[in-house]
This record gives sequence, C-alpha cells and structure tokens, in this order.
Amino acid sequence: MKVYLDNAATTKTDDAVIQAMAAAMAETFGNASSVHGFGRPARQAIEKARRQVAALINAQPEEILFTSGGTESDNLALVGVAEAYRRKGNHIITSQVEHHAVLHTCEHLEKLGYTVTYLPVDEFGRVTAEQVEAAITDETILVSIMYGNNEVGTLMPIADIGRVTRAKGVLFHTDAVQAAGQVPVDVVADQVDLLTLTGHKLHGPKGCGALFVRKGVRVAPQLFGGAQERGIRPGTENVPGIVGLGVAAELAGARLAADGNRRMRELRNYLLKGILERIPEVKVNGHTMERLPNNVNVSVKFIEGEGMLLSLDMVGIAASSGSACTSGSLDPSHVLLAMGLDHATAHGSLRLTLSHETTAEEIDYVLEKLPAIVERLRGMSPLWQAAQSKLGEEVACARQNRAGCACPYKG
Amino acid sequence: MKVYLDNAATTKTDDAVIQAMAAAMAETFGNASSVHGFGRPARQAIEKARRQVAALINAQPEEILFTSGGTESDNLALVGVAEAYRRKGNHIITSQVEHHAVLHTCEHLEKLGYTVTYLPVDEFGRVTAEQVEAAITDETILVSIMYGNNEVGTLMPIADIGRVTRAKGVLFHTDAVQAAGQVPVDVVADQVDLLTLTGHKLHGPKGCGALFVRKGVRVAPQLFGGAQERGIRPGTENVPGIVGLGVAAELAGARLAADGNRRMRELRNYLLKGILERIPEVKVNGHTMERLPNNVNVSVKFIEGEGMLLSLDMVGIAASSGSACTSGSLDPSHVLLAMGLDHATAHGSLRLTLSHETTAEEIDYVLEKLPAIVERLRGMSPLWQAAQSKLGEEVACARQNRAGCACPYKG
Repeated sequence: MKVYLDNAATTKTDDAVIQAMAAAMAETFGNASSVHGFGRPARQAIEKARRQVAALINAQPEEILFTSGGTESDNLALVGVAEAYRRKGNHIITSQVEHHAVLHTCEHLEKLGYTVTYLPVDEFGRVTAEQVEAAITDETILVSIMYGNNEVGTLMPIADIGRVTRAKGVLFHTDAVQAAGQVPVDVVADQVDLLTLTGHKLHGPKGCGALFVRKGVRVAPQLFGGAQERGIRPGTENVPGIVGLGVAAELAGARLAADGNRRMRELRNYLLKGILERIPEVKVNGHTMERLPNNVNVSVKFIEGEGMLLSLDMVGIAASSGSACTSGSLDPSHVLLAMGLDHATAHGSLRLTLSHETTAEEIDYVLEKLPAIVERLRGMSPLWQAAQSKLGEEVACARQNRAGCACPYKG
Repeated sequence: MKVYLDNAATTKTDDAVIQAMAAAMAETFGNASSVHGFGRPARQAIEKARRQVAALINAQPEEILFTSGGTESDNLALVGVAEAYRRKGNHIITSQVEHHAVLHTCEHLEKLGYTVTYLPVDEFGRVTAEQVEAAITDETILVSIMYGNNEVGTLMPIADIGRVTRAKGVLFHTDAVQAAGQVPVDVVADQVDLLTLTGHKLHGPKGCGALFVRKGVRVAPQLFGGAQERGIRPGTENVPGIVGLGVAAELAGARLAADGNRRMRELRNYLLKGILERIPEVKVNGHTMERLPNNVNVSVKFIEGEGMLLSLDMVGIAASSGSACTSGSLDPSHVLLAMGLDHATAHGSLRLTLSHETTAEEIDYVLEKLPAIVERLRGMSPLWQAAQSKLGEEVACARQNRAGCACPYKG
C-alpha cells in the first residue's frame, strides 16, 4: 500500500488540473502578450484564472499577481513593500515560526538597513494581536504573519491582527500557502493587504503561485524586463501554470463550500486519536483547535523523526519530520524550538498531512504500522530504555504507594 | 488556414513535452526535497533534466540552475554577479540591443551605483569583440551580450567576445534565449561563464528556464527561502516544468544534430526571397548571414507594422511587429533604432519567425496573402502616395533622360 501523508510538502496534482494544463499547452500555447489569434486565447485564459484565484480569497481579479510560487510571492511582498515604503519607515514585524521564505527574506532586509522584530510564539505556535500591536512603532511599515503554520498547522489570529494593523495604518502580509484551500480565507473580512498562495499546495501546479496585493498598495518590482503583470512581475506569462492554478483554486473553493473540509478534519482527528491511543509518550505539537484541518504533528519521545520516516517509507508511507525545505538538515525545526520544545523532543517530531483524497483505509494502515515502528526504534534507543526503567520505577511506586519512597514520581 | 510565425515570441509545446509533464504531474508529484518514495523519483527526474539541458550547451549538469524563465535567469546572472563581485569592481558592459530583461536590469543596477556601458551596434545589430575589449576597464566585472537577437535574429560574435573576456579576466554572460536550440551553442568553446535559456522558446514549457553558471563563478541569490538549487534559487522545485525543459532540450539537440535546422533555414530564405520579389520598397533588418535560422525581419516602408499584424491575423497568420514584450506599446523598437533605422521605417517592421514544424504550404500561404495586404494598406497611406509620385517622377525622368531636368533623381 502507498500512503501519501506529506501534503504540506506538496500535493498530488488534480487530474482536472493536469488536463487543463495539457490543453493549455496544446491549444493555448500563444504568448499572452501577442496581439493575434494565438495570443488572445492565452490572455483570456490568464484572466479567467485570475478571477478563479481571486474568488478563493474574496479578492478582486486585478488584485492578483501571478508569480513562480510561494517563495517568490513572499519575497516580492516583503522586499517589494519594504522598498516602496522606505520613506515611511524601516521597521517590519514577523514571527519566529514563519517559513524560511519569510524569515530569510527578513534577514536579507536587515542587511539592507531595515529593522525586523521576530515575535516569539506561545507553546502552540501562536502570536497574539496584542503582541503585534505592542510591537508597532512609528517606523513600522509591514507586519508579516503566516496564516497557518507549515509544520505544526497552527492557525494565527489573522482577523485580529488585520484589525490591529489596519487601525494603525500598517500593511499586513500573510503567507497563506498552507491555509488557502484548507480553511476559508477572506482578505476583506480579515483586512489583509498582501497574501501569498501557491499552486502545488492545493493540488495545482508547481512553479506557479500568486500574490494578492490590495488595490492601492504599492509593491516595488524585484525582477526587471517586460511589462507583464502590470510591470510588477515581468517575464512571459506561464499560461499553463496559471490556468492550472485557476482550476485548482476553483476546485479547492468548491470543496470548502461543500463541507468545509469536514471529512478530512475528521480523518485527521481519527489519525491523531489513534496515535495517542496506541503509542505512549507522544506529545502533540501545535494548537488542538486553531489548526489546519489536514495537519498532525507529534513528537514521539526518545526516538528521532528521521528513523521513523525511513521506516514508514519502507512500508510505503510518506511523511515528514519537519518542513520539506529543511529535510536533509540535522538542525531541529526552528518552529518547534520557538514553541519551547527541547532539542530531543523537536528531533522526534513527525508530521503527517492529509488531503481530501486520503481514505480511512490509509489511516488504518498507518495506525497499524506506526506503533510497531516506534516500538522497534525505541527498543534500540538507550534514552527509551533509561526512561522505561524510570517509568517502571514510577509505576511500581504508584502501585505500592510506599511511604518513604524517594523516587520523584511518587503520587 | 492557421499559420503560426511568431516562434520568437513563444513556441508550440512539443507533444512529447506535454506528455512528459503530464506524467510528471500524475506520477512524480512528490516534493523533490522529500526523503521518501514520492520525493526520490522527483529528485531523479530533476537530475535527468539537468543532464539533458547541460548537454544542449556542452555544460556540466551541476552548472545548470533551474529558474522560472529567461527573465529571472537574466536578472539572476546580472544582479547576482554584480553583488558577488562588487569588491572587484562596479562596471558592466552590455549592448543597446539586448532584451529588456537585460537592459532594464542594467538600469536597475545603475540606480544601485553600478556603471553600465551600453555598446552601440552596427547597421546589422552587431557589436564586435574589439568594441567589448576597448570598453573593459579595471572596474569591469561582467559583459552581457546576447547570443541571437530576439527581434532581428542577428547573431553576435560570441566566441570572439568569449576570447576577449576570458583573456581579460572578466565574466561573460550571454542571453541565449533565442539561440539555444536554433544554433549549436557550446559554452566551453565559446568561453561563456553564464548563459540564459528558457523552455518556451524551444518547444518546452513556459515558466521554466535555466541559468548556466560555470563552475567557480559566484552568483548571489536574489530570492531567499529554502536550500533548493544549491541555495541559489529557493522554492519548491517545479518538477514538471523542469522535466519538460529537459525533454525539450534533448529534442532541440537532436534536431540540431540531425540537420542543423537546415530545412527551417531554407524555408526562411524562401520566405524572405518571396517577400522581396513580391513587395517593393522592403528593407531587410538584421544580418543576412550571421542570423538565427528561423528569423525574418523586414521593414515594409510607408506603412505601419500594426496594420500588417491585424490584417495578417484576419487571415489566420500570426506574426509580430517587434518583440512581444513591447507589443501594445507605440514606441518603436529600441533594437531597430539602435541599428540606425528612422522611426517611420522602424514602425513598419514585421517579424516572421519559423519553427521546425513550419511547412512550405504555410510559407506559400503567407506569400499569397502578404503582398495584397501591403498593397491595400499602402493604398490608404498618404506617405506611400507621396513616395509613388516621386518614384513616378524619377522613372519618367530616367526614361526621358532630359537635359536640364531639375528633379533630384536625374541619372
């Protein structure tokens, strides 16, 4: 059995998306900037996709810029706003748990003379609107707080932050790469000024994303060339990618409208409950309620995530031990550390992320395989053995309820 | 009949490319950075494509970076080198006929304190290696001269420039977006240090390009995020796009190996000859010999390119009156002006660009339709009528060969 539970890294491209992209390549191959019969349908296809993407987040079509993906959108939002509003101020506020596309861009901006506040998060990975408000100074031009965390799935209080930033006259960007399509996103209700999304996280194409830029908000271009995308994002338009993103956005919106991803959320809860019932000494990472509906993130204590990944892979289960962008790295997740986990617990993290295509049978398969894998790995772990003897002592102590017991676990 | 002669704007995606991309989307959809059974095939697909692209230009696979297209590759080459070698100098040399992805990026660099020399070109649109050599100073870090011009098809003396730059210890970037796949490109023989190419100009995907960076040459990243593409180009890899680019590069290489695009070149010559035979007062733009094999660019005097485009479009022929990136603009082509054309002649330019799929029947159709279109448009042109009466005077004068004739055309 093959079970794909790494949908936060990337999603399976929807068949309808593949078909639409193949058709766009075969039939609408013209350059959208060409003023002839091969170019016009390409232009129309792009504008249709712009409406589809706008509809998913309650934006206007002309507020959608197409880019090469989430990383470029985040970079364009941050550096583009920083440059365009440099005369207003030089201060940016973000959080410690953002994706590296935001964090590393902020570090780049610090080198250029901007000041960045990296807000700490609570144990669930959340910042509050009050924290944001308290951090705003006369120099603040931009707040960038992600919508939903890519590792632990925690949802940030976006509407609250939007209320604060709008009231203070500060621009608000949110990286909604993980949230768009998973939960209802409304840039008007949430008072968001810039929003990043990308195709491949919502069963659309890789290599194509979008940046919502609210009307009136200025963004300095970061690439130079032709006049495409209102001169803000030059380069021959990726018509098939844009078409695919449009179809994916429409399908994601339809799924949200149908059941609000309730079925996926229930399966996710079933998976998490099953893990907690079957495996002792597991810590749930992230918020239990304010959470993306597809995300499970647990720290399986006394073993390492990498070992679990390899063992799961051998039985056909694809998972992640952190964000895909940092896999291969031995550093523990910056998100988990910011949430206060110690290195050992952070290293034992396992992320399982569902899609609307995930089945109960697949979850049952994981619940069948994972406990045995954990047991085997713990059997090889000196940390686990040491802990077991302590646990054994605790159990014995509790059973006997001996007076005068010196063990730290005495009830 | 539908005739697509705008292949310099973009090409029809090859069926094999579409199939490979559709398969990559359906079957190799994993994140190439994921360490599981869905990620590994994606990684392998990318590395295969890297070898395919490298082979087209005689590079090593590890010298190929994948980007979102030609504009990003040009930007990364110029700004990336400018930043990385800032301590060595601040001078860049380019030409007046580059694509806007190079020219506008150079203008951006000027704002950042760099000095840029924009070399003039001869009437054919060429710079010489001697011009480049004479412009190099102790401050020069980079020369960026395009391989083949996107408007007039003129090939630059790349190997000569490579010899000069390598001897002087100056880096050499070439925008080979139009040339790659059209003519044999060899980065070793030509002593090129950085080279831009893109998928959609060689029957591959839109939204995916590459930058060749010779081993040892440093390029400062222009996007910040994950560690993809050796940290130089972050963002989840566009696996289907990269796969498509690889297939397109291999197919283009095979066509070059088969006949060096001889058939296309002959059809191009047939088209140009046909136009010159059938339409009076036509000026050929660009070099006659040192020219991309798919390019025809002519100025049809006394009328405007836009009128020809619209009339050709009405009979199903797709052409261009300049680069697609500037269409919709009323400014005459910067390339034609740099070659010394007056505004009126530049405005009358018509670009017809073939592909290997172009047929003799399609060319015959153009040669049937275009002369009538030109005649009709000239019939409405006061400039043409004025010129005709002058021409008439000249002919009469020559025939009569009258002594004492005051007309300027007297033989």
